[in-house]
Amino acid sequence: MKKIGILGGGQLGRMLLQAAINYPVEMHVLENDPNCPAAGFCQYFSKGDITNYDDVVEFGKNLDAITIEIEQVNTDALNKLEEMGVVVFPKASIITTIKNKIQQKQFFVQHQIPTSPFITTQTNADIAAHPNLLPGVHKLAMGGYDGRGVQVIQSLTDIGKGFPGPAVLEKMVTIKQEISQLIAIDQNGKYTYYPTVDMVFDTSLNMLSYQICPANLPKHVQEQISTIAVKVAKSLNSPGVFAIEFFVNDQDEVLVNEIAPRVHNSGHHTIEASYSSQFDMLLRIILGYPLGSTENRTNAALINLIGASGYNGTPIYRGIEKALNIENVFVHIYGKSNTKPGRKMGHITITDNDIKSLKEKVKEIKNIISVEA
Amino acid sequence: MKKIGILGGGQLGRMLLQAAINYPVEMHVLENDPNCPAAGFCQYFSKGDITNYDDVVEFGKNLDAITIEIEQVNTDALNKLEEMGVVVFPKASIITTIKNKIQQKQFFVQHQIPTSPFITTQTNADIAAHPNLLPGVHKLAMGGYDGRGVQVIQSLTDIGKGFPGPAVLEKMVTIKQEISQLIAIDQNGKYTYYPTVDMVFDTSLNMLSYQICPANLPKHVQEQISTIAVKVAKSLNSPGVFAIEFFVNDQDEVLVNEIAPRVHNSGHHTIEASYSSQFDMLLRIILGYPLGSTENRTNAALINLIGASGYNGTPIYRGIEKALNIENVFVHIYGKSNTKPGRKMGHITITDNDIKSLKEKVKEIKNIISVEA
Repeated sequence: MKKIGILGGGQLGRMLLQAAINYPVEMHVLENDPNCPAAGFCQYFSKGDITNYDDVVEFGKNLDAITIEIEQVNTDALNKLEEMGVVVFPKASIITTIKNKIQQKQFFVQHQIPTSPFITTQTNADIAAHPNLLPGVHKLAMGGYDGRGVQVIQSLTDIGKGFPGPAVLEKMVTIKQEISQLIAIDQNGKYTYYPTVDMVFDTSLNMLSYQICPANLPKHVQEQISTIAVKVAKSLNSPGVFAIEFFVNDQDEVLVNEIAPRVHNSGHHTIEASYSSQFDMLLRIILGYPLGSTENRTNAALINLIGASGYNGTPIYRGIEKALNIENVFVHIYGKSNTKPGRKMGHITITDNDIKSLKEKVKEIKNIISVEA
Repeated sequence: MKKIGILGGGQLGRMLLQAAINYPVEMHVLENDPNCPAAGFCQYFSKGDITNYDDVVEFGKNLDAITIEIEQVNTDALNKLEEMGVVVFPKASIITTIKNKIQQKQFFVQHQIPTSPFITTQTNADIAAHPNLLPGVHKLAMGGYDGRGVQVIQSLTDIGKGFPGPAVLEKMVTIKQEISQLIAIDQNGKYTYYPTVDMVFDTSLNMLSYQICPANLPKHVQEQISTIAVKVAKSLNSPGVFAIEFFVNDQDEVLVNEIAPRVHNSGHHTIEASYSSQFDMLLRIILGYPLGSTENRTNAALINLIGASGYNGTPIYRGIEKALNIENVFVHIYGKSNTKPGRKMGHITITDNDIKSLKEKVKEIKNIISVEA
């Protein structure tokens, strides 16, 4: 029975464990918090720091394979484990490249993957020297996650908001649509794509409002995305599941914003909407099984359940019963012991082939559900 | 967060835990074997005997709800727990009735649920006194499971094979078809049905060959089944998921063979084939959520993975990769540490709306897969 380790014990780990229950595998999780979402559902839980070299090597040395649910892990340890014969999904070198926003941008350039213009910065003076990139988005090279380590610089007067140390300054894109494309690559380099996902933002709150799959895209945009996705799959040259996040700008040009080297929030609907979910797919890849079908069984939308503002503490999920009264609504609670404003506490998937009705249900459910304390 | 306990840690418990990962619940398992299929996937595992009064009361006394994955549990303890305010799914009284084959038969008679003619027996003399029931099937009142405690008595010369002690002698039915009907009843008595399942037997091996859903039934047979299923749902008068196993005889008459007061092998395809699987449904019932949709998303077949004869020990699952190469084939391995001939080690679900192609895939997969050691 293969022994697979996951670095990180959040909701992605939890849902990966859920899928792993189908297979002849032994699952291990490394995470500092013994009350994390994944802790109760693996055969072996190890308390430890995924950013600490010794903890990661100690955790992984007797495993057959390791995967990640967050890219902020100790990649030196992953390199060491690869030398020791542990297979890392995706390759340690790819995680190293992607977790550093400077290296990730350079990877795009190297492989002629279209992305917004950028420079690397060390000090605010570097920003000041490139007014042509303003308004721009300043991103710390390392450690950013879920909006942290990212700062909009509107003009030269904003320069004081810039991060000191290694960072990227990107020219801001006039975003018409944000699209996610999940790809899966097996150990032989064979790859497959899930249908594209439209990430619909609430511009007033500056956060994701909902996701819908498939995305409604003009043919020429869809073609650009498909071409780039193939290029990305070939450039990555590593087995794994990846999410490519695209910007479609006001000229209908497609640019790659970021790649996540792992299962991703934009793929959670695949649990119900696909024959093989992103989690099932990653396990198939790790176990050397054939890739699953990425075909949509049905159209789907997804809403993140975010901790409501003003509430901190033991979560109370309001409205679940009401939401489940609507046909083919699926609830996924992540089992976090505390809610706080903006924290991802769960998600809701809705399946319905009628896009109009899907969007109406999204609206309805957003009014019903809240996470309080 | 509701605390739910499962008595028994086999594959049914394992798949229930898999479904529970979606919900805000804390799952507990009671089972003697710490290496059982469910042990690694619950937040709390208790080692103990599900047939022992003290063990069951101790396990359940601080829980909100208890359910079972096998009916051979200590029902006196469940009665006690109900008195203490723990909600048992299904009711302790129903488990008591069903786990005793004499009481189960009497329940059918009491509620005018058609079943094969029978007598209760204590000694072989009781069999001898009823030659009109031969050929018959002799079943121990208590403790029978998966074929154990069941004996065919062809004629008076076979009487020596009969069981001493409380048992049932049923007249053997000329079986044309064996059909299973899953029903789900919520805490308010509202019920819903899954599509019927045809349990196709291999008469040469006298074991289940495969299951297919929906069953292909003439209208007048389907109508009898539906009528009986409604009657059963009302007679049970308890929340829970139940499997009603029917015989269709050579006269197209429908008789109830047995009721299982729990999730059941004949419902495993619902994980992929239904919007709400039997496991998801049981959790919805326990949590007081609305019943899920029982509609088939697709037709489906199911093959049990049975330990091959001649092999005992650590299981080796042969042919999984090959099977997964066939479109929309899903593997469920139960994680048992040892295989032995005839032991249920896992199952395979195939989804395909074309019944002919479904049956061809069943045949193909049965040739590919085996569980050895």
